[in-house]
Amino acid sequence: MNFASDNVMGASPQVLQALLRANDGPLPAYGSDPITRAVERRLAELFERELTVALVATGTAANALALSLLTPPWGICLCHREAHVMEDECGAPEFYTHGAKLVGLDGVGAKVKADDLESYLRGLTSHVRQMPPKALTISQANECGLVYSTEQIAALSDVCHRHGLRLHMDGARFANALVALGSSPAEMTWRSGVDILSFGATKNGCLAAEAIVVFDPELARTLEYRRKRSGHTLSKGRLLAAQLEGYLANDHWLDNARHANRMATRLAQGLRSLPGVRLAWPTEANEVFPILPRSMDAALKSAGAVYHPWSGASLAPGEQVRADEILVRLVTSFATCEEDVRRFLSIAEAAASKAGA
Amino acid sequence: MNFASDNVMGASPQVLQALLRANDGPLPAYGSDPITRAVERRLAELFERELTVALVATGTAANALALSLLTPPWGICLCHREAHVMEDECGAPEFYTHGAKLVGLDGVGAKVKADDLESYLRGLTSHVRQMPPKALTISQANECGLVYSTEQIAALSDVCHRHGLRLHMDGARFANALVALGSSPAEMTWRSGVDILSFGATKNGCLAAEAIVVFDPELARTLEYRRKRSGHTLSKGRLLAAQLEGYLANDHWLDNARHANRMATRLAQGLRSLPGVRLAWPTEANEVFPILPRSMDAALKSAGAVYHPWSGASLAPGEQVRADEILVRLVTSFATCEEDVRRFLSIAEAAASKAGA
Amino acid sequence: MNFASDNVMGASPQVLQALLRANDGPLPAYGSDPITRAVERRLAELFERELTVALVATGTAANALALSLLTPPWGICLCHREAHVMEDECGAPEFYTHGAKLVGLDGVGAKVKADDLESYLRGLTSHVRQMPPKALTISQANECGLVYSTEQIAALSDVCHRHGLRLHMDGARFANALVALGSSPAEMTWRSGVDILSFGATKNGCLAAEAIVVFDPELARTLEYRRKRSGHTLSKGRLLAAQLEGYLANDHWLDNARHANRMATRLAQGLRSLPGVRLAWPTEANEVFPILPRSMDAALKSAGAVYHPWSGASLAPGEQVRADEILVRLVTSFATCEEDVRRFLSIAEAAASKAGA
Amino acid sequence: MNFASDNVMGASPQVLQALLRANDGPLPAYGSDPITRAVERRLAELFERELTVALVATGTAANALALSLLTPPWGICLCHREAHVMEDECGAPEFYTHGAKLVGLDGVGAKVKADDLESYLRGLTSHVRQMPPKALTISQANECGLVYSTEQIAALSDVCHRHGLRLHMDGARFANALVALGSSPAEMTWRSGVDILSFGATKNGCLAAEAIVVFDPELARTLEYRRKRSGHTLSKGRLLAAQLEGYLANDHWLDNARHANRMATRLAQGLRSLPGVRLAWPTEANEVFPILPRSMDAALKSAGAVYHPWSGASLAPGEQVRADEILVRLVTSFATCEEDVRRFLSIAEAAASKAGA
Repeated sequence: MNFASDNVMGASPQVLQALLRANDGPLPAYGSDPITRAVERRLAELFERELTVALVATGTAANALALSLLTPPWGICLCHREAHVMEDECGAPEFYTHGAKLVGLDGVGAKVKADDLESYLRGLTSHVRQMPPKALTISQANECGLVYSTEQIAALSDVCHRHGLRLHMDGARFANALVALGSSPAEMTWRSGVDILSFGATKNGCLAAEAIVVFDPELARTLEYRRKRSGHTLSKGRLLAAQLEGYLANDHWLDNARHANRMATRLAQGLRSLPGVRLAWPTEANEVFPILPRSMDAALKSAGAVYHPWSGASLAPGEQVRADEILVRLVTSFATCEEDVRRFLSIAEAAASKAGA
Repeated sequence: MNFASDNVMGASPQVLQALLRANDGPLPAYGSDPITRAVERRLAELFERELTVALVATGTAANALALSLLTPPWGICLCHREAHVMEDECGAPEFYTHGAKLVGLDGVGAKVKADDLESYLRGLTSHVRQMPPKALTISQANECGLVYSTEQIAALSDVCHRHGLRLHMDGARFANALVALGSSPAEMTWRSGVDILSFGATKNGCLAAEAIVVFDPELARTLEYRRKRSGHTLSKGRLLAAQLEGYLANDHWLDNARHANRMATRLAQGLRSLPGVRLAWPTEANEVFPILPRSMDAALKSAGAVYHPWSGASLAPGEQVRADEILVRLVTSFATCEEDVRRFLSIAEAAASKAGA
Repeated sequence: MNFASDNVMGASPQVLQALLRANDGPLPAYGSDPITRAVERRLAELFERELTVALVATGTAANALALSLLTPPWGICLCHREAHVMEDECGAPEFYTHGAKLVGLDGVGAKVKADDLESYLRGLTSHVRQMPPKALTISQANECGLVYSTEQIAALSDVCHRHGLRLHMDGARFANALVALGSSPAEMTWRSGVDILSFGATKNGCLAAEAIVVFDPELARTLEYRRKRSGHTLSKGRLLAAQLEGYLANDHWLDNARHANRMATRLAQGLRSLPGVRLAWPTEANEVFPILPRSMDAALKSAGAVYHPWSGASLAPGEQVRADEILVRLVTSFATCEEDVRRFLSIAEAAASKAGA
Repeated sequence: MNFASDNVMGASPQVLQALLRANDGPLPAYGSDPITRAVERRLAELFERELTVALVATGTAANALALSLLTPPWGICLCHREAHVMEDECGAPEFYTHGAKLVGLDGVGAKVKADDLESYLRGLTSHVRQMPPKALTISQANECGLVYSTEQIAALSDVCHRHGLRLHMDGARFANALVALGSSPAEMTWRSGVDILSFGATKNGCLAAEAIVVFDPELARTLEYRRKRSGHTLSKGRLLAAQLEGYLANDHWLDNARHANRMATRLAQGLRSLPGVRLAWPTEANEVFPILPRSMDAALKSAGAVYHPWSGASLAPGEQVRADEILVRLVTSFATCEEDVRRFLSIAEAAASKAGA
């Protein structure tokens, strides 16, 4: 019953097989091999347009490199106050941008709203003291498990582009968001105004593979130098490319995401129906954020369930976690098995009954 | 007949098997898993002492992170003028050190000599205009295929430590050097005064796995932050750890290196005996640098041999490459097969005969 | 009637005279001249202890260099959300620290409270994702014209030091705060736990002269390199030193500050007594923040008064600026003349009468 | 008899007077004052074209900011091996460019030759490992007291522009070079292909004033942010502007430079005529580099002459400094008096006679 994160499992079998297949024989180094080329073509096909791709091994590298293409050292990159890039990357964006400033906006459920963005931008002066805003980054699905609709993305990109900002999407959970929306990769990104995407695959079935997908070729001009210089250009490029080849083949990535989301929905439905339990935010992708009675939390933990407590910093106004409650995060993945979900729910139910007795 | 580099092949079978074995089940993320712990212990055992280890996916990352531990932004890191860190990493050391200066010293065969180091250091002033020298990095085996003896390493570290510099070893081809010297890991590093080692494994049988090995724990204090911030802390840490587990088990890494070196020696012996061919530098590890008649080069190329021309910038005084000659690099690896070596030599021999006819 | 800032005037006569006196004859370059030495001794005397001093031409340079001594690239520097370093230096701290993160805390009147600092620090994890907090910087007097008492400074430094942070004081208006408190330089700084001070002189009578004053010599080890490397080591060091010599002689700096504070008090008292006017924050040094009826603001502007509107972001809870009001900042300096204050107040009074009629 | 540098004296009287005149009354801060505007217009007039100007207090800041406009963090900036930016600025270019690499070319008398530049550039690959060359910087007059002719500058800029590089001129001794060539500011810079100029004034009569002069407005787009962010935007901008106003008025700057050059010529002629003395490089501006018998050096030193020994690293082939000789640098300035020159020469002459006796 490990719901700690979607990075606690290894690769899915299909990805692993692709890795094995790709191992034999000599291939040109540094990403000039045919597997990398094929992955680039596959992504172009999926996104229905020409694009520039750079493969890297971590989401932090993908995000930081992407933001460094958008934000000069003296610029501001906006994000939500609780964004992964703000809180969980030990300053990678600042390192890669050579000292740009991340400014965190408020917003319920870790979502940035177009109106708040507009207000913030209008409040800035153009004095040289003021670092100019250059980019917005949003997480899809986000840190509270929520998914921006394509309309919301378009509204944000509209504000961005009117004010001279570019829009980046942190897609560490891109597939989970995509199947949640039932949208297409193109619609959820460049057709809604996204300029650069961190296309995550690690959490959804790979071991370590992310693609920086740049929709405007002009933005990508310096990407190869930046990647090489940061040590993210693998000499045996097949390692990254093969994972993505397996990941993208036969809709495997979408199947994985659908499974993870289904497991999350089941957890959410089961928990929400229990007395004393409510959800901090709706379950839209593969993360569930229940507010549990502490007694239930104790019962789950002692039965071996693994998960983390979570911050309530962007709860809806009026909502709060009482002293005898705890807000936790449950993450499902391609590897989450139904049996674990069932067991988790039955322990929770027993705890609820006992508390009600 | 691909002798282009030791990074054109995938993983060796033993490494791949370890990767497969490690794939199952949930494991803690970000390198706090038991496989990573085991690799750390194994390295401590191999090096016969306590040490701090950080795993990364590329040699560029290993070198740049290591140098950033030694050289402040206003410091100088010395190296050979043709060192990999100087010429082939697109400024990664400058990026990771936030602008330290690499200063390249001369030296035949890409080797830094202790006397030259001493002279350089004595020539510096201590005025604030002068960036202070803080580190020396040497490649073992180096860019001309040569290996520093433990005495030479000790002589360099002695100069370094007397002048307040630290010594880093770029061990992208550590195993090849080690078996060439018949030395122990401890002797070739910390017992000879090396402070930090980039322990390479990618070229010698892994897909993407290098270990930063820090012998002085004080130097390692900031390493975790630097690694995370650069996006080199893999969430599924097992990917790196499993490769190294397979690599280090049962002397697999030494076997791989011995094979590669043997293939290189065979190539060197075969070529050297041909009329019109001589070696730019002795073959001490897994790289051979013959100066070939251009006609022989053409014959080899048209028979499908793959390899790169090389710079003669650090040839011995008096030695030079004539207009009808070409200096090339042949690299062997764990995967080089004897048949390829034989075929290569026989084509070369035929070309030599034809030229002599 | 120019109350726009304390940087709109040139140098005070005593400072200018010192500059003239210092101009003749050859002197060693780069700050190794006797005038610089004398200023260093004078500061040591004033602060009643050994200290390390580096002179620079701007407050931005002083602050950014000081913070770079305290905060590594992967560290957090705390400050108030509206601090000058956060809002008005175009990212200088980020540039000089190579990408450290400034985190802004809330607090009425731009003051950081020890309790809030403690809560923030306790809320952090020690996971490698989390940039570790390394410094707090406070402005004395601050951006809302308020002055930290020595007890408040000591309480902040106590929290800092218990949690491994260092304390920096941005003393752009150091003299104004000092005479407001009636404290001594030593009491207001190192005796209350301040580790580094930006000792401002530009706003209080110099043309361009600030001293970075480091109380812990260990912290200053890298300062000379950092200053040189940033282009802030003047070759003709006498320019900076002579200004400070004139500034510090005969309590000239304290006289200047007393005059400025007196002018501010007079403005505050006059304005506060008018119907429809109130102060956003108490007037403690040389800045006055009245909330004026818009009609009064118009009358003052049309009579030629110069000043800027100001942000109400850290007004006390419950306080707010109505639509027919405006919050403005009036800054006085050594050069503010009583006649201007009188005229300003009489125009304001007339506007108040007219509004009341 | 202080010939240590042209930065050991204060300001010339005309510059000082301008500073005094500019001190009175309120002026807008941060360089938006009318004196700064007037200096900008004056420079545009002098250079016979529209240009962008940013004033700073040091040559190091001017050079580093200028180079940061030309060289991205992953780019190479070429210069002579002994250039001031390479040897004497403690890594300021690396700091401001966020880690670009300075690569030093060889050349007699610290001069870069167009042919050598061309060869270097042709030798580079376009592989991503290779940082791309983006700029060349030359010093005019240079570190060996030599002056590039306009033809030489044009030849260098031609190579630069054909290869996609920009050309920067470090004009710390711009006026000395200009009067030496008898050229116009326009001819010696943009008409010969210079893209950015560090227009030095500190060494030639100011206290601390340099102008970054950008001929291509597109290159200047980010300059204001970079200057502010580095702490080089003075709040009381009049300090820099007033110095330059006095400096540029009535050809004062040219008079100062002519005087300095004349004094250097006199020193050179006098010394060169003495037995046992020769010049390392011709005297073309305000620096003289005699190779003196050590006995003469001792006599001069004991008579109170002040000057520095110098490096012979770029002596002409065949030339060398014998063990009983010393290569020294004598620098003259606007403030060098004829009497000092006469005395210096007469001591040298006496020493020569004594040695010959």
